[in-house]
Amino acid sequence: MRILRTGMVQISCTADVGENLSRLEAGIREAASQGAKLVVLQELHNSLYFCQSENAKLCDLAEPIPGPSTERFGALARELGIVLVLSLFERRTPGIYHNTAVVLENDGSIAGKYRKMHIPDDPLFYEKFYFTPGDMGFQPIKTSVGTLGVLVCWDQWYPEAARAMALAGAEVLIYPTAIGGVPTDPDWEQAQQRQAWQLVQRGHAVANGLPVVTVNRTGVEPDPSGLSSGIDFWGHSFACGAQGELLTEFEKDEKGVRVVDLDLEQSEYVRRGWPFLRDRRIDAYDVLLKRFND
Amino acid sequence: MRILRTGMVQISCTADVGENLSRLEAGIREAASQGAKLVVLQELHNSLYFCQSENAKLCDLAEPIPGPSTERFGALARELGIVLVLSLFERRTPGIYHNTAVVLENDGSIAGKYRKMHIPDDPLFYEKFYFTPGDMGFQPIKTSVGTLGVLVCWDQWYPEAARAMALAGAEVLIYPTAIGGVPTDPDWEQAQQRQAWQLVQRGHAVANGLPVVTVNRTGVEPDPSGLSSGIDFWGHSFACGAQGELLTEFEKDEKGVRVVDLDLEQSEYVRRGWPFLRDRRIDAYDVLLKRFND
Repeated sequence: MRILRTGMVQISCTADVGENLSRLEAGIREAASQGAKLVVLQELHNSLYFCQSENAKLCDLAEPIPGPSTERFGALARELGIVLVLSLFERRTPGIYHNTAVVLENDGSIAGKYRKMHIPDDPLFYEKFYFTPGDMGFQPIKTSVGTLGVLVCWDQWYPEAARAMALAGAEVLIYPTAIGGVPTDPDWEQAQQRQAWQLVQRGHAVANGLPVVTVNRTGVEPDPSGLSSGIDFWGHSFACGAQGELLTEFEKDEKGVRVVDLDLEQSEYVRRGWPFLRDRRIDAYDVLLKRFND
Repeated sequence: MRILRTGMVQISCTADVGENLSRLEAGIREAASQGAKLVVLQELHNSLYFCQSENAKLCDLAEPIPGPSTERFGALARELGIVLVLSLFERRTPGIYHNTAVVLENDGSIAGKYRKMHIPDDPLFYEKFYFTPGDMGFQPIKTSVGTLGVLVCWDQWYPEAARAMALAGAEVLIYPTAIGGVPTDPDWEQAQQRQAWQLVQRGHAVANGLPVVTVNRTGVEPDPSGLSSGIDFWGHSFACGAQGELLTEFEKDEKGVRVVDLDLEQSEYVRRGWPFLRDRRIDAYDVLLKRFND
Protein backbone atom coordinates (compact mmCIF):
# COMPACT_ATOMS: atom_id res chain seq x y z
CA MET A 1 0.00 0.00 0.00
CA ARG A 2 1.08 3.53 -0.78
CA ILE A 3 -0.69 5.60 1.82
CA LEU A 4 -1.20 9.33 1.45
CA ARG A 5 -2.40 10.82 4.70
CA THR A 6 -4.60 13.72 3.70
CA GLY A 7 -5.93 16.53 5.86
CA MET A 8 -9.23 18.26 5.15
CA VAL A 9 -9.99 21.65 6.74
CA GLN A 10 -13.66 22.67 6.86
CA ILE A 11 -14.30 26.13 8.29
CA SER A 12 -16.87 28.90 8.29
CA CYS A 13 -15.68 32.22 6.90
CA THR A 14 -16.17 35.77 8.08
CA ALA A 15 -15.81 39.19 6.46
CA ASP A 16 -12.43 39.46 8.20
CA VAL A 17 -9.83 37.92 5.90
CA GLY A 18 -7.24 37.94 8.68
CA GLU A 19 -9.54 35.88 10.89
CA ASN A 20 -10.14 33.40 8.08
CA LEU A 21 -6.41 33.05 7.50
CA SER A 22 -5.92 32.35 11.19
CA ARG A 23 -8.58 29.65 11.15
CA LEU A 24 -7.04 28.08 8.08
CA GLU A 25 -3.54 28.14 9.52
CA ALA A 26 -4.75 26.55 12.74
CA GLY A 27 -6.47 23.81 10.74
CA ILE A 28 -3.44 23.17 8.56
CA ARG A 29 -1.19 22.93 11.60
CA GLU A 30 -3.60 20.52 13.26
CA ALA A 31 -3.73 18.33 10.14
CA ALA A 32 0.06 18.30 9.88
CA SER A 33 0.33 17.41 13.57
CA GLN A 34 -1.83 14.38 12.80
CA GLY A 35 0.59 13.32 10.11
CA ALA A 36 -1.04 14.73 7.00
CA LYS A 37 1.32 15.10 4.04
CA LEU A 38 -1.34 16.70 1.86
CA VAL A 39 -3.83 19.28 3.10
CA VAL A 40 -6.86 20.48 1.15
CA LEU A 41 -8.76 23.70 1.82
CA GLN A 42 -12.25 24.72 0.71
CA GLU A 43 -13.04 26.92 -2.28
CA LEU A 44 -12.21 30.64 -1.99
CA HIS A 45 -11.23 30.05 1.61
CA ASN A 46 -9.77 33.47 2.31
CA SER A 47 -13.05 35.35 2.21
CA LEU A 48 -16.79 35.14 2.38
CA TYR A 49 -18.31 33.57 -0.72
CA PHE A 50 -18.57 36.92 -2.46
CA CYS A 51 -20.48 35.70 -5.54
CA GLN A 52 -23.86 36.07 -3.83
CA SER A 53 -24.18 39.40 -5.63
CA GLU A 54 -22.59 41.06 -8.64
CA ASN A 55 -20.39 43.84 -7.35
CA ALA A 56 -17.34 44.97 -9.29
CA LYS A 57 -15.81 46.43 -6.14
CA LEU A 58 -15.38 42.88 -4.81
CA CYS A 59 -12.74 42.24 -7.44
CA ASP A 60 -10.49 43.99 -4.94
CA LEU A 61 -10.40 40.62 -3.19
CA ALA A 62 -8.48 39.12 -6.11
CA GLU A 63 -4.71 38.70 -6.02
CA PRO A 64 -1.97 37.68 -8.39
CA ILE A 65 -0.45 34.20 -8.44
CA PRO A 66 2.24 34.12 -7.18
CA GLY A 67 1.13 36.68 -4.63
CA PRO A 68 0.40 37.23 -0.95
CA SER A 69 -1.47 33.96 -0.41
CA THR A 70 1.05 31.73 -2.15
CA GLU A 71 3.79 33.44 -0.14
CA ARG A 72 2.07 33.11 3.20
CA PHE A 73 0.83 29.56 2.69
CA GLY A 74 4.05 28.62 0.92
CA ALA A 75 6.00 29.48 4.05
CA LEU A 76 3.62 27.32 6.07
CA ALA A 77 3.86 24.41 3.63
CA ARG A 78 7.64 24.59 3.84
CA GLU A 79 7.64 24.84 7.63
CA LEU A 80 5.32 21.83 8.00
CA GLY A 81 6.68 19.84 5.07
CA ILE A 82 3.27 19.36 3.47
CA VAL A 83 1.73 19.72 0.05
CA LEU A 84 -1.12 22.22 0.23
CA VAL A 85 -4.10 22.80 -2.08
CA LEU A 86 -5.29 26.42 -2.06
CA SER A 87 -8.30 27.96 -3.78
CA LEU A 88 -7.80 31.62 -4.70
CA PHE A 89 -9.49 34.47 -6.51
CA GLU A 90 -6.84 35.10 -9.15
CA ARG A 91 -6.22 38.54 -10.63
CA ARG A 92 -4.59 37.84 -13.97
CA THR A 93 -4.95 41.27 -15.49
CA PRO A 94 -7.59 43.99 -15.20
CA GLY A 95 -10.74 42.41 -16.61
CA ILE A 96 -9.54 38.82 -16.35
CA TYR A 97 -10.09 37.08 -13.06
CA HIS A 98 -10.15 33.35 -12.44
CA ASN A 99 -11.26 30.93 -9.76
CA THR A 100 -7.93 29.18 -9.39
CA ALA A 101 -6.63 26.31 -7.32
CA VAL A 102 -2.94 26.39 -6.50
CA VAL A 103 -0.91 23.44 -5.33
CA LEU A 104 2.07 24.28 -3.16
CA GLU A 105 4.94 21.82 -2.90
CA ASN A 106 6.34 20.91 0.51
CA ASP A 107 9.26 23.24 -0.05
CA GLY A 108 6.86 26.16 -0.43
CA SER A 109 7.16 26.44 -4.20
CA ILE A 110 4.21 26.43 -6.56
CA ALA A 111 3.79 22.95 -8.02
CA GLY A 112 1.03 24.04 -10.38
CA LYS A 113 -2.35 25.64 -10.69
CA TYR A 114 -5.74 24.86 -12.16
CA ARG A 115 -8.22 27.45 -13.35
CA LYS A 116 -11.84 26.40 -12.83
CA MET A 117 -13.17 25.33 -16.21
CA HIS A 118 -16.91 25.08 -15.58
CA ILE A 119 -18.36 28.30 -14.21
CA PRO A 120 -21.83 28.23 -12.65
CA ASP A 121 -24.36 30.98 -12.56
CA ASP A 122 -27.58 30.69 -10.67
CA PRO A 123 -29.27 32.78 -8.02
CA LEU A 124 -26.76 33.60 -5.22
CA PHE A 125 -23.96 31.94 -7.19
CA TYR A 126 -23.24 34.63 -9.78
CA GLU A 127 -19.84 33.28 -10.75
CA LYS A 128 -20.04 34.10 -14.42
CA PHE A 129 -19.78 37.75 -13.45
CA TYR A 130 -16.49 37.28 -11.65
CA PHE A 131 -14.67 34.36 -13.20
CA THR A 132 -13.33 33.97 -16.70
CA PRO A 133 -13.58 30.28 -17.58
CA GLY A 134 -10.29 28.46 -17.22
CA ASP A 135 -8.00 28.21 -20.23
CA MET A 136 -5.52 25.64 -18.96
CA GLY A 137 -7.57 22.53 -19.62
CA PHE A 138 -7.64 19.52 -17.32
CA GLN A 139 -4.05 18.94 -16.32
CA PRO A 140 -3.23 17.16 -13.08
CA ILE A 141 -0.43 18.57 -10.98
CA LYS A 142 2.61 16.48 -10.13
CA THR A 143 3.83 16.72 -6.55
CA SER A 144 6.10 14.82 -4.21
CA VAL A 145 3.05 13.03 -2.75
CA GLY A 146 1.36 12.09 -6.00
CA THR A 147 -0.26 13.44 -9.14
CA LEU A 148 -3.24 15.52 -8.07
CA GLY A 149 -6.33 15.97 -10.25
CA VAL A 150 -7.46 19.28 -8.79
CA LEU A 151 -10.85 20.56 -9.95
CA VAL A 152 -13.10 23.18 -8.39
CA CYS A 153 -16.73 23.08 -7.24
CA TRP A 154 -19.05 23.24 -10.31
CA ASP A 155 -16.56 20.98 -12.10
CA GLN A 156 -17.65 18.26 -9.71
CA TRP A 157 -20.91 17.76 -11.63
CA TYR A 158 -19.07 16.96 -14.86
CA PRO A 159 -17.98 13.38 -15.54
CA GLU A 160 -15.98 14.80 -18.43
CA ALA A 161 -13.70 16.72 -16.07
CA ALA A 162 -13.07 13.75 -13.83
CA ARG A 163 -12.40 11.50 -16.81
CA ALA A 164 -10.07 14.02 -18.42
CA MET A 165 -8.03 14.21 -15.22
CA ALA A 166 -7.90 10.42 -14.96
CA LEU A 167 -6.78 10.08 -18.56
CA ALA A 168 -4.04 12.61 -17.91
CA GLY A 169 -2.70 10.50 -15.05
CA ALA A 170 -4.34 11.89 -11.91
CA GLU A 171 -3.99 9.60 -8.89
CA VAL A 172 -6.64 11.37 -6.83
CA LEU A 173 -9.44 13.83 -7.60
CA ILE A 174 -9.59 16.88 -5.34
CA TYR A 175 -12.50 19.32 -5.22
CA PRO A 176 -12.34 22.52 -3.15
CA THR A 177 -15.97 23.64 -3.16
CA ALA A 178 -18.48 26.14 -1.79
CA ILE A 179 -21.96 24.76 -2.10
CA GLY A 180 -24.98 25.24 0.05
CA GLY A 181 -28.69 25.43 0.17
CA VAL A 182 -31.08 28.25 -0.24
CA PRO A 183 -33.05 28.27 3.01
CA THR A 184 -36.25 28.85 1.06
CA ASP A 185 -35.94 25.43 -0.56
CA PRO A 186 -37.86 22.77 1.38
CA ASP A 187 -35.87 20.44 3.62
CA TRP A 188 -36.48 17.33 1.51
CA GLU A 189 -35.16 19.12 -1.57
CA GLN A 190 -32.05 20.38 0.21
CA ALA A 191 -31.35 16.86 1.46
CA GLN A 192 -31.88 15.43 -2.02
CA GLN A 193 -29.58 18.01 -3.56
CA ARG A 194 -26.84 17.35 -1.05
CA GLN A 195 -27.16 13.64 -1.64
CA ALA A 196 -26.98 14.19 -5.40
CA TRP A 197 -23.84 16.25 -4.91
CA GLN A 198 -22.13 13.45 -3.04
CA LEU A 199 -23.47 10.73 -5.35
CA VAL A 200 -22.11 12.22 -8.52
CA GLN A 201 -18.64 12.64 -7.05
CA ARG A 202 -18.53 9.14 -5.61
CA GLY A 203 -19.64 8.07 -9.08
CA HIS A 204 -16.55 9.75 -10.52
CA ALA A 205 -14.44 7.69 -8.12
CA VAL A 206 -16.09 4.50 -9.35
CA ALA A 207 -15.96 5.33 -13.04
CA ASN A 208 -12.28 6.25 -12.87
CA GLY A 209 -11.02 4.00 -10.11
CA LEU A 210 -9.65 6.95 -8.16
CA PRO A 211 -10.11 8.30 -4.64
CA VAL A 212 -11.92 11.63 -4.29
CA VAL A 213 -11.39 14.36 -1.68
CA THR A 214 -13.96 17.16 -1.47
CA VAL A 215 -13.70 20.05 0.97
CA ASN A 216 -16.71 22.34 1.35
CA ARG A 217 -17.32 25.37 3.53
CA THR A 218 -19.85 25.49 6.38
CA GLY A 219 -21.92 28.19 8.04
CA VAL A 220 -24.55 30.66 6.93
CA GLU A 221 -23.39 33.67 4.95
CA PRO A 222 -25.93 36.48 4.53
CA ASP A 223 -26.71 37.93 1.13
CA PRO A 224 -25.01 41.36 1.08
CA SER A 225 -27.78 42.68 -1.16
CA GLY A 226 -30.33 41.83 1.51
CA LEU A 227 -32.59 40.48 -1.23
CA SER A 228 -32.45 36.88 -0.01
CA SER A 229 -31.72 34.96 3.14
CA GLY A 230 -28.25 34.04 1.91
CA ILE A 231 -26.60 30.64 1.64
CA ASP A 232 -26.50 27.91 4.25
CA PHE A 233 -23.36 26.04 3.24
CA TRP A 234 -23.63 22.29 3.42
CA GLY A 235 -20.34 21.34 5.00
CA HIS A 236 -20.28 17.54 4.64
CA SER A 237 -16.78 17.54 3.20
CA PHE A 238 -15.93 13.94 2.45
CA ALA A 239 -13.40 11.53 1.04
CA CYS A 240 -14.02 8.23 -0.71
CA GLY A 241 -11.88 5.44 -2.08
CA ALA A 242 -11.45 4.21 -5.63
CA GLN A 243 -14.71 2.27 -5.54
CA GLY A 244 -16.64 5.20 -4.16
CA GLU A 245 -16.64 3.84 -0.62
CA LEU A 246 -16.92 6.62 1.97
CA LEU A 247 -13.79 7.03 4.07
CA THR A 248 -14.79 10.08 6.09
CA GLU A 249 -17.55 12.66 6.07
CA PHE A 250 -17.88 15.86 8.08
CA GLU A 251 -21.10 16.95 9.70
CA LYS A 252 -22.95 19.88 8.20
CA ASP A 253 -21.91 22.42 10.83
CA GLU A 254 -18.64 20.82 11.82
CA LYS A 255 -15.67 23.16 11.89
CA GLY A 256 -12.30 21.56 12.04
CA VAL A 257 -9.97 19.00 10.63
CA ARG A 258 -10.11 15.38 9.60
CA VAL A 259 -7.30 13.29 8.27
CA VAL A 260 -7.86 10.31 6.03
CA ASP A 261 -5.47 7.72 4.68
CA LEU A 262 -5.80 7.35 0.92
CA ASP A 263 -4.35 4.17 -0.54
CA LEU A 264 -2.95 5.27 -3.88
CA GLU A 265 -2.31 1.65 -4.88
CA GLN A 266 -5.99 0.76 -4.60
CA SER A 267 -6.51 2.19 -8.09
CA GLU A 268 -4.21 -0.37 -9.62
CA TYR A 269 -6.09 -3.17 -7.89
CA VAL A 270 -9.54 -1.81 -8.69
CA ARG A 271 -8.74 -1.07 -12.32
CA ARG A 272 -7.36 -4.57 -12.88
CA GLY A 273 -10.58 -6.07 -11.58
CA TRP A 274 -12.84 -3.69 -13.46
CA PRO A 275 -10.83 -2.49 -16.47
CA PHE A 276 -13.22 0.22 -17.62
CA LEU A 277 -10.48 2.25 -19.26
CA ARG A 278 -9.61 -0.71 -21.50
CA ASP A 279 -13.03 -0.81 -23.10
CA ARG A 280 -13.83 2.86 -23.69
CA ARG A 281 -15.37 3.30 -27.16
CA ILE A 282 -13.25 6.25 -28.22
CA ASP A 283 -14.38 5.63 -31.79
CA ALA A 284 -17.93 6.51 -30.79
CA TYR A 285 -17.58 9.43 -28.39
CA ASP A 286 -17.56 12.29 -30.90
CA VAL A 287 -21.00 13.34 -29.71
CA LEU A 288 -19.40 14.37 -26.40
CA LEU A 289 -17.84 17.31 -28.20
CA LYS A 290 -21.26 18.65 -29.17
CA ARG A 291 -23.49 20.94 -27.15
CA PHE A 292 -26.51 18.80 -28.00
CA ASN A 293 -26.91 16.11 -30.60
CA ASP A 294 -29.92 17.55 -32.43
CA MET B 1 -46.26 15.86 -14.10
CA ARG B 2 -45.87 13.41 -16.94
CA ILE B 3 -45.86 10.06 -15.20
CA LEU B 4 -44.52 6.94 -16.84
CA ARG B 5 -45.46 3.90 -14.83
CA THR B 6 -42.64 1.45 -15.37
CA GLY B 7 -42.51 -2.24 -14.52
CA MET B 8 -39.30 -4.03 -13.64
CA VAL B 9 -39.13 -7.85 -13.78
CA GLN B 10 -36.31 -9.49 -11.82
CA ILE B 11 -36.10 -13.27 -12.17
CA SER B 12 -33.69 -16.14 -11.81
CA CYS B 13 -33.04 -18.13 -14.97
CA THR B 14 -32.76 -21.84 -15.61
CA ALA B 15 -31.32 -23.95 -18.41
CA ASP B 16 -34.90 -24.38 -19.70
CA VAL B 17 -35.61 -21.46 -22.02
CA GLY B 18 -39.31 -22.27 -22.06
CA GLU B 19 -39.45 -22.00 -18.29
CA ASN B 20 -37.65 -18.64 -18.41
CA LEU B 21 -40.09 -17.34 -21.01
CA SER B 22 -42.98 -18.40 -18.79
CA ARG B 23 -41.51 -16.54 -15.82
CA LEU B 24 -40.94 -13.45 -17.92
CA GLU B 25 -44.43 -13.51 -19.36
CA ALA B 26 -45.95 -13.88 -15.90
CA GLY B 27 -43.91 -10.91 -14.69
CA ILE B 28 -44.83 -8.77 -17.66
CA ARG B 29 -48.52 -9.55 -17.19
CA GLU B 30 -48.28 -8.72 -13.50
CA ALA B 31 -46.58 -5.39 -14.26
CA ALA B 32 -49.21 -4.53 -16.84
CA SER B 33 -51.97 -5.44 -14.42
CA GLN B 34 -50.47 -2.88 -12.03
CA GLY B 35 -50.69 -0.24 -14.72
CA ALA B 36 -47.20 -0.30 -16.18
CA LYS B 37 -46.97 1.22 -19.67
CA LEU B 38 -43.28 0.36 -19.98
CA VAL B 39 -41.76 -2.93 -18.84
CA VAL B 40 -38.02 -3.61 -18.60
CA LEU B 41 -36.44 -7.06 -18.49
CA GLN B 42 -32.98 -8.08 -17.37
CA GLU B 43 -30.03 -8.73 -19.66
CA LEU B 44 -30.13 -11.91 -21.78
CA HIS B 45 -33.30 -12.91 -19.98
CA ASN B 46 -34.17 -15.92 -22.13
CA SER B 47 -31.33 -18.11 -20.93
CA LEU B 48 -28.74 -18.73 -18.32
CA TYR B 49 -25.91 -16.21 -18.45
CA PHE B 50 -23.94 -18.33 -20.89
CA CYS B 51 -20.77 -16.21 -20.91
CA GLN B 52 -19.32 -17.98 -17.87
CA SER B 53 -17.30 -20.05 -20.30
CA GLU B 54 -16.19 -19.78 -23.92
CA ASN B 55 -18.10 -22.38 -25.88
CA ALA B 56 -18.87 -21.84 -29.55
CA LYS B 57 -21.76 -24.29 -29.34
CA LEU B 58 -23.63 -21.79 -27.17
CA CYS B 59 -23.99 -19.47 -30.15
CA ASP B 60 -26.94 -21.74 -30.93
CA LEU B 61 -28.78 -19.63 -28.36
CA ALA B 62 -28.60 -16.60 -30.66
CA GLU B 63 -31.50 -15.59 -32.85
CA PRO B 64 -32.16 -13.05 -35.58
CA ILE B 65 -33.91 -9.73 -34.94
CA PRO B 66 -36.73 -9.74 -35.90
CA GLY B 67 -37.08 -13.36 -34.86
CA PRO B 68 -38.82 -15.69 -32.45
CA SER B 69 -38.43 -13.49 -29.38
CA THR B 70 -39.56 -10.27 -31.00
CA GLU B 71 -42.57 -12.15 -32.38
CA ARG B 72 -43.53 -13.77 -29.12
CA PHE B 73 -42.96 -10.72 -26.95
CA GLY B 74 -44.37 -8.46 -29.65
CA ALA B 75 -47.66 -10.29 -29.45
CA LEU B 76 -47.63 -9.84 -25.69
CA ALA B 77 -46.78 -6.13 -25.93
CA ARG B 78 -49.66 -5.67 -28.34
CA GLU B 79 -52.07 -7.65 -26.20
CA LEU B 80 -51.19 -5.69 -23.06
CA GLY B 81 -50.67 -2.34 -24.77
CA ILE B 82 -47.22 -1.82 -23.27
CA VAL B 83 -43.79 -0.81 -24.48
CA LEU B 84 -41.34 -3.59 -23.70
CA VAL B 85 -37.53 -3.57 -23.42
CA LEU B 86 -35.97 -6.93 -24.33
CA SER B 87 -32.35 -8.03 -24.14
CA LEU B 88 -31.42 -10.64 -26.72
CA PHE B 89 -28.46 -12.58 -28.06
CA GLU B 90 -28.58 -11.39 -31.65
CA ARG B 91 -27.42 -13.53 -34.56
CA ARG B 92 -26.58 -11.05 -37.29
CA THR B 93 -24.69 -13.39 -39.58
CA PRO B 94 -22.42 -16.36 -38.96
CA GLY B 95 -19.49 -14.95 -37.02
CA ILE B 96 -21.23 -11.73 -35.97
CA TYR B 97 -23.28 -11.90 -32.82
CA HIS B 98 -24.35 -8.97 -30.64
CA ASN B 99 -25.72 -8.35 -27.19
CA THR B 100 -28.74 -6.38 -28.30
CA ALA B 101 -31.59 -4.61 -26.56
CA VAL B 102 -34.83 -4.38 -28.52
CA VAL B 103 -37.65 -1.99 -27.74
CA LEU B 104 -41.10 -3.17 -28.77
CA GLU B 105 -43.85 -0.62 -29.31
CA ASN B 106 -47.26 -1.17 -27.75
CA ASP B 107 -48.59 -2.38 -31.10
CA GLY B 108 -46.02 -5.16 -31.14
CA SER B 109 -43.75 -3.58 -33.72
CA ILE B 110 -40.03 -3.03 -33.21
CA ALA B 111 -39.45 0.58 -32.16
CA GLY B 112 -35.68 0.23 -32.30
CA LYS B 113 -32.68 -1.64 -31.04
CA TYR B 114 -29.38 -0.94 -29.36
CA ARG B 115 -26.29 -3.08 -29.69
CA LYS B 116 -24.16 -3.11 -26.52
CA MET B 117 -21.20 -0.86 -27.17
CA HIS B 118 -18.90 -1.65 -24.24
CA ILE B 119 -18.11 -5.36 -24.02
CA PRO B 120 -16.58 -6.69 -20.79
CA ASP B 121 -14.26 -9.58 -20.37
CA ASP B 122 -13.19 -10.84 -17.03
CA PRO B 123 -13.26 -14.20 -15.32
CA LEU B 124 -16.74 -15.75 -15.67
CA PHE B 125 -17.87 -12.86 -17.88
CA TYR B 126 -16.20 -13.82 -21.16
CA GLU B 127 -18.33 -11.56 -23.30
CA LYS B 128 -15.63 -10.58 -25.77
CA PHE B 129 -15.75 -14.13 -27.07
CA TYR B 130 -19.45 -13.94 -27.91
CA PHE B 131 -20.33 -10.35 -28.65
CA THR B 132 -19.11 -8.12 -31.43
CA PRO B 133 -19.06 -4.56 -30.06
CA GLY B 134 -22.08 -2.52 -31.12
CA ASP B 135 -21.85 -0.47 -34.30
CA MET B 136 -24.98 1.63 -33.94
CA GLY B 137 -23.63 4.22 -31.53
CA PHE B 138 -25.65 5.73 -28.71
CA GLN B 139 -29.07 6.44 -30.16
CA PRO B 140 -32.10 6.62 -27.91
CA ILE B 141 -35.26 4.95 -29.14
CA LYS B 142 -38.45 6.93 -29.64
CA THR B 143 -41.62 5.27 -28.39
CA SER B 144 -45.18 6.25 -27.56
CA VAL B 145 -44.23 6.52 -23.87
CA GLY B 146 -41.04 8.54 -24.28
CA THR B 147 -37.56 8.53 -25.73
CA LEU B 148 -35.65 5.67 -24.14
CA GLY B 149 -31.88 5.72 -23.65
CA VAL B 150 -31.37 1.98 -23.59
CA LEU B 151 -27.88 0.77 -22.70
CA VAL B 152 -26.74 -2.66 -21.53
CA CYS B 153 -24.82 -3.80 -18.44
CA TRP B 154 -21.11 -2.94 -18.84
CA ASP B 155 -22.20 0.32 -20.47
CA GLN B 156 -23.46 1.34 -17.05
CA TRP B 157 -19.93 2.05 -15.84
CA TYR B 158 -19.32 4.60 -18.59
CA PRO B 159 -20.37 8.21 -18.02
CA GLU B 160 -19.70 8.73 -21.73
CA ALA B 161 -22.53 6.40 -22.71
CA ALA B 162 -25.02 8.04 -20.37
CA ARG B 163 -24.03 11.51 -21.54
CA ALA B 164 -24.20 10.52 -25.20
CA MET B 165 -27.74 9.25 -24.69
CA ALA B 166 -28.74 12.42 -22.83
CA LEU B 167 -27.28 14.62 -25.56
CA ALA B 168 -29.24 12.66 -28.14
CA GLY B 169 -32.48 13.38 -26.30
CA ALA B 170 -33.05 10.39 -24.01
CA GLU B 171 -35.70 11.01 -21.37
CA VAL B 172 -34.75 8.03 -19.24
CA LEU B 173 -31.72 5.73 -19.04
CA ILE B 174 -32.49 2.01 -19.03
CA TYR B 175 -29.97 -0.71 -18.22
CA PRO B 176 -30.81 -4.39 -18.57
CA THR B 177 -27.93 -6.04 -16.75
CA ALA B 178 -26.48 -9.31 -15.49
CA ILE B 179 -23.98 -8.65 -12.76
CA GLY B 180 -23.08 -10.65 -9.75
CA GLY B 181 -20.38 -11.60 -7.36
CA VAL B 182 -17.82 -14.30 -7.38
CA PRO B 183 -18.49 -16.22 -4.18
CA THR B 184 -14.77 -16.41 -3.52
CA ASP B 185 -14.59 -12.64 -3.09
CA PRO B 186 -14.93 -11.64 0.56
CA ASP B 187 -18.28 -10.29 1.72
CA TRP B 188 -17.04 -6.73 2.30
CA GLU B 189 -15.70 -6.58 -1.23
CA GLN B 190 -18.89 -7.90 -2.78
CA ALA B 191 -20.89 -5.33 -0.83
CA GLN B 192 -18.52 -2.56 -1.87
CA GLN B 193 -18.73 -3.62 -5.51
CA ARG B 194 -22.50 -3.71 -5.48
CA GLN B 195 -22.59 -0.28 -3.87
CA ALA B 196 -20.17 1.05 -6.50
CA TRP B 197 -22.41 -0.37 -9.21
CA GLN B 198 -25.42 1.50 -7.89
CA LEU B 199 -23.45 4.68 -7.12
CA VAL B 200 -22.10 5.14 -10.60
CA GLN B 201 -25.53 4.75 -12.18
CA ARG B 202 -27.21 7.11 -9.74
CA GLY B 203 -24.37 9.45 -10.59
CA HIS B 204 -25.38 9.27 -14.26
CA ALA B 205 -28.88 10.31 -13.22
CA VAL B 206 -27.47 13.32 -11.38
CA ALA B 207 -25.01 14.37 -14.07
CA ASN B 208 -27.64 14.19 -16.78
CA GLY B 209 -30.80 15.08 -14.89
CA LEU B 210 -32.51 11.89 -16.00
CA PRO B 211 -34.21 8.97 -14.24
CA VAL B 212 -32.47 5.60 -14.41
CA VAL B 213 -34.03 2.12 -14.47
CA THR B 214 -31.75 -0.88 -14.00
CA VAL B 215 -32.96 -4.46 -14.06
CA ASN B 216 -30.56 -7.19 -12.98
CA ARG B 217 -30.94 -10.94 -12.67
CA THR B 218 -30.91 -12.87 -9.41
CA GLY B 219 -29.95 -16.37 -8.37
CA VAL B 220 -26.83 -18.49 -8.46
CA GLU B 221 -25.81 -19.95 -11.80
CA PRO B 222 -23.13 -22.63 -11.71
CA ASP B 223 -20.07 -22.45 -13.92
CA PRO B 224 -20.65 -25.06 -16.68
CA SER B 225 -16.89 -25.66 -16.83
CA GLY B 226 -16.90 -26.67 -13.18
CA LEU B 227 -13.74 -24.65 -12.73
CA SER B 228 -15.32 -22.11 -10.39
CA SER B 229 -18.26 -21.79 -8.07
CA GLY B 230 -20.20 -19.75 -10.63
CA ILE B 231 -21.89 -16.39 -10.27
CA ASP B 232 -24.18 -15.24 -7.49
CA PHE B 233 -26.18 -12.54 -9.25
CA TRP B 234 -26.81 -9.44 -7.20
CA GLY B 235 -30.44 -8.73 -7.95
CA HIS B 236 -30.97 -5.28 -6.42
CA SER B 237 -32.63 -3.94 -9.55
CA PHE B 238 -33.45 -0.32 -8.86
CA ALA B 239 -34.85 2.90 -10.22
CA CYS B 240 -33.90 6.44 -9.31
CA GLY B 241 -35.12 9.91 -10.21
CA ALA B 242 -33.36 12.72 -12.02
CA GLN B 243 -31.38 13.73 -8.94
CA GLY B 244 -30.30 10.17 -8.25
CA GLU B 245 -32.89 9.69 -5.48
CA LEU B 246 -33.81 6.03 -5.05
CA LEU B 247 -37.40 5.28 -6.02
CA THR B 248 -37.38 1.52 -5.61
CA GLU B 249 -34.84 -1.23 -5.05
CA PHE B 250 -35.30 -5.00 -5.13
CA GLU B 251 -33.78 -7.31 -2.59
CA LYS B 252 -30.88 -9.49 -3.66
CA ASP B 253 -32.85 -12.71 -3.97
CA GLU B 254 -36.23 -11.17 -4.73
CA LYS B 255 -38.01 -12.66 -7.72
CA GLY B 256 -40.90 -10.72 -9.08
CA VAL B 257 -42.18 -7.39 -10.22
CA ARG B 258 -42.08 -3.82 -9.05
CA VAL B 259 -43.69 -0.85 -10.69
CA VAL B 260 -42.40 2.66 -10.25
CA ASP B 261 -43.80 5.99 -11.39
CA LEU B 262 -41.17 8.00 -13.24
CA ASP B 263 -41.90 11.71 -13.57
CA LEU B 264 -40.55 12.60 -16.99
CA GLU B 265 -41.07 16.31 -16.31
CA GLN B 266 -38.70 16.26 -13.35
CA SER B 267 -35.78 16.56 -15.78
CA GLU B 268 -36.98 19.93 -16.97
CA TYR B 269 -37.25 21.17 -13.39
CA VAL B 270 -33.93 19.71 -12.28
CA ARG B 271 -32.02 20.92 -15.31
CA ARG B 272 -33.34 24.47 -14.89
CA GLY B 273 -32.10 24.53 -11.33
CA TRP B 274 -28.77 22.94 -12.12
CA PRO B 275 -28.06 23.70 -15.78
CA PHE B 276 -25.03 21.45 -16.18
CA LEU B 277 -25.60 20.99 -19.90
CA ARG B 278 -25.36 24.76 -20.42
CA ASP B 279 -21.81 24.93 -19.10
CA ARG B 280 -20.14 21.90 -20.65
CA ARG B 281 -16.66 22.83 -21.95
CA ILE B 282 -16.99 21.19 -25.33
CA ASP B 283 -13.94 23.19 -26.45
CA ALA B 284 -11.82 21.28 -23.94
CA TYR B 285 -13.07 17.71 -24.11
CA ASP B 286 -10.91 16.43 -26.98
CA VAL B 287 -8.97 14.32 -24.53
CA LEU B 288 -12.08 12.18 -24.07
CA LEU B 289 -11.50 10.78 -27.54
CA LYS B 290 -8.10 9.43 -26.52
CA ARG B 291 -7.33 6.09 -24.95
CA PHE B 292 -4.97 7.76 -22.48
CA ASN B 293 -3.50 11.23 -22.52
CA ASP B 294 0.18 10.26 -22.31
